[in-house]
Amino acid sequence: MKQLDFGRRQSIIVEDMNESEIDLFLITPSIDFGYLFKAFMSMSERLICGILSIHDDAQIIAPSFEKENIQNRTPFDDVITWNEEEDPFAVLKESINNNVKKIALEPTMSFEIYTKLKKQFPETEFVDGSSIIRKQRSIKTEAEIERLEKAGKYTVEGMMNALELLKPGLSELEVLKLVQKEMTIQSGEPSWALVQFDENSAVPHGPPSTRKMKENSVVLIDAGTMCDNYFADITLTTFYGNVTDEFLKVYEIVQEANDTALDASKVGVPCEEVDFAARKVIDEAGYGKYFTHRLGHGLGLEVHEEPYMVKGNKRKLVKGNVHTDEPGIYMPDKFGIRIEDDILVGDKTKRLVTFDRHLWK
Amino acid sequence: MKQLDFGRRQSIIVEDMNESEIDLFLITPSIDFGYLFKAFMSMSERLICGILSIHDDAQIIAPSFEKENIQNRTPFDDVITWNEEEDPFAVLKESINNNVKKIALEPTMSFEIYTKLKKQFPETEFVDGSSIIRKQRSIKTEAEIERLEKAGKYTVEGMMNALELLKPGLSELEVLKLVQKEMTIQSGEPSWALVQFDENSAVPHGPPSTRKMKENSVVLIDAGTMCDNYFADITLTTFYGNVTDEFLKVYEIVQEANDTALDASKVGVPCEEVDFAARKVIDEAGYGKYFTHRLGHGLGLEVHEEPYMVKGNKRKLVKGNVHTDEPGIYMPDKFGIRIEDDILVGDKTKRLVTFDRHLWK
Repeated sequence: MKQLDFGRRQSIIVEDMNESEIDLFLITPSIDFGYLFKAFMSMSERLICGILSIHDDAQIIAPSFEKENIQNRTPFDDVITWNEEEDPFAVLKESINNNVKKIALEPTMSFEIYTKLKKQFPETEFVDGSSIIRKQRSIKTEAEIERLEKAGKYTVEGMMNALELLKPGLSELEVLKLVQKEMTIQSGEPSWALVQFDENSAVPHGPPSTRKMKENSVVLIDAGTMCDNYFADITLTTFYGNVTDEFLKVYEIVQEANDTALDASKVGVPCEEVDFAARKVIDEAGYGKYFTHRLGHGLGLEVHEEPYMVKGNKRKLVKGNVHTDEPGIYMPDKFGIRIEDDILVGDKTKRLVTFDRHLWK
Repeated sequence: MKQLDFGRRQSIIVEDMNESEIDLFLITPSIDFGYLFKAFMSMSERLICGILSIHDDAQIIAPSFEKENIQNRTPFDDVITWNEEEDPFAVLKESINNNVKKIALEPTMSFEIYTKLKKQFPETEFVDGSSIIRKQRSIKTEAEIERLEKAGKYTVEGMMNALELLKPGLSELEVLKLVQKEMTIQSGEPSWALVQFDENSAVPHGPPSTRKMKENSVVLIDAGTMCDNYFADITLTTFYGNVTDEFLKVYEIVQEANDTALDASKVGVPCEEVDFAARKVIDEAGYGKYFTHRLGHGLGLEVHEEPYMVKGNKRKLVKGNVHTDEPGIYMPDKFGIRIEDDILVGDKTKRLVTFDRHLWK
């Protein structure tokens, strides 16, 4: 696979910092830390913090006993350490040589850590770094697209293998485990899934249950696995057994909404317009009140990230955005149908993975 | 099991808020949210926030489509909702009837959410709510102690069952899986484990590897399972095969340090004194430089929480604190020994679970 370029990611952030006159960008363990420093670590009560500066090279501050571990896990060697009895925030402050007027914080940094930083830098302005980091994360490089495509391929292959094992009497929870297992066989990485049958499928994101599949059942599978930490998120709704006319009628409307959104998703188009395009199809077919959620969300190191395809989001799509296209019609006490693809915005916007979903008799 | 009293937990917070003249305490999904509202939920990009007020009853703000889910998962019925196209922070602001001078934030709340709250309440002082919430969480009620004891019992039973399956040739990763599986059989809840053999045990918290057990091996297992979300954290170091004199000599020193810390852990004693007591034993035996970490940490809904037994922590122990007692001696390129118990501070401080660790020949 193409290599991810962490040095370049940091340089782009530093360029943006220069433009906004931000001296430091501080990043505690989080998805963003993994994005910028390669190591996906979890927060603990012991401070670990990445430091990007417009004056100096990138550094990481960490407990002394973690130094080797961190150097093994990131390509960045400059680790400042603190000992168990020291105040890590004082050590951080001491390591900063320059006058610091403005500090941007990684958006998921905790309020508690911010409070402790503010004590060390009382005169400094603190700003939310979300726009800087999310702008870059939402524009996928070729190396990232390769991973997202692979995650999609593994997901579809795993789903298809699981579908062959379906039979009446299996519960939603059993099918969920099957799907997860088959996806992980493909990817070698963790997988997640939601599975709903019949009336249950009419509740978007309802919890999986012990409800069993019948001789004739609607089967909704919303699932994904990963490739090198990049997620897929694909929903397949199918009919096991002898399909009904009502299912086919609604299915065609959802498919048309999905196709229409794909056509609407173009460079320069505001995100909300993509939602409107799909919603118009469903509204005009008379099912508007059954499409109860936004059209989609960005996809990458998180299953939900920017950009969001939702009313009110005027942000314009750019080349390299990857987002889901997932219209749905949910008819209470009957069934729900959602068709979800992952799509890449470009000169010609396209689905990252395509497959034949027409599995019914 | 005794019931957890979520109403009482909230009342204690509100009493503290009254004392500190805090109008609102805001809690986004987190361990603290689970502690106060019963539901352990994860943060997503859609705002969910618990609101404790000195003026009104507790409320939760959540996306409309999550209302039923949240009402099912918490004993608190008052859910304010926002729709996909609304600004949830504006909805939150509107729902607050009183003048708000001071707001405390749950300490892990993200800086991004704080920034958005600050926009809605520009004149309000925001303070870190960590002291309020952590004080209460560190003092365990009878119902919590029951859960912690059960978690300890399940952990020890699982460990003991796994030990019977040990044999030369098994790798650290294989034994880790065995231990996890056996603990989860006992508890029915998730478990975690670290397993290290021989020279690897000399690196505290080093990653498990494919290193194999020999006919004669040091085996260090640091593990825990849960009971109703409350953790155990227990370390057993043993010798498989024919124990060496050096192992026995070092083992006795670590055991004495562990016993000494138990005796030192009393109501009114500063936390750091408990660390000093154990460290003195190891220092005087001439192994001081090999005890490279703090003595212990609090234990409850998190594996690491307050109070911390570490140099510099002058905080005094109170009745109901639960903390680990885990001295260790780590001799590079030889082996490491750690003996870790979970102990409850009280009129007579005691181990939550005891068992015979002398398993060697």
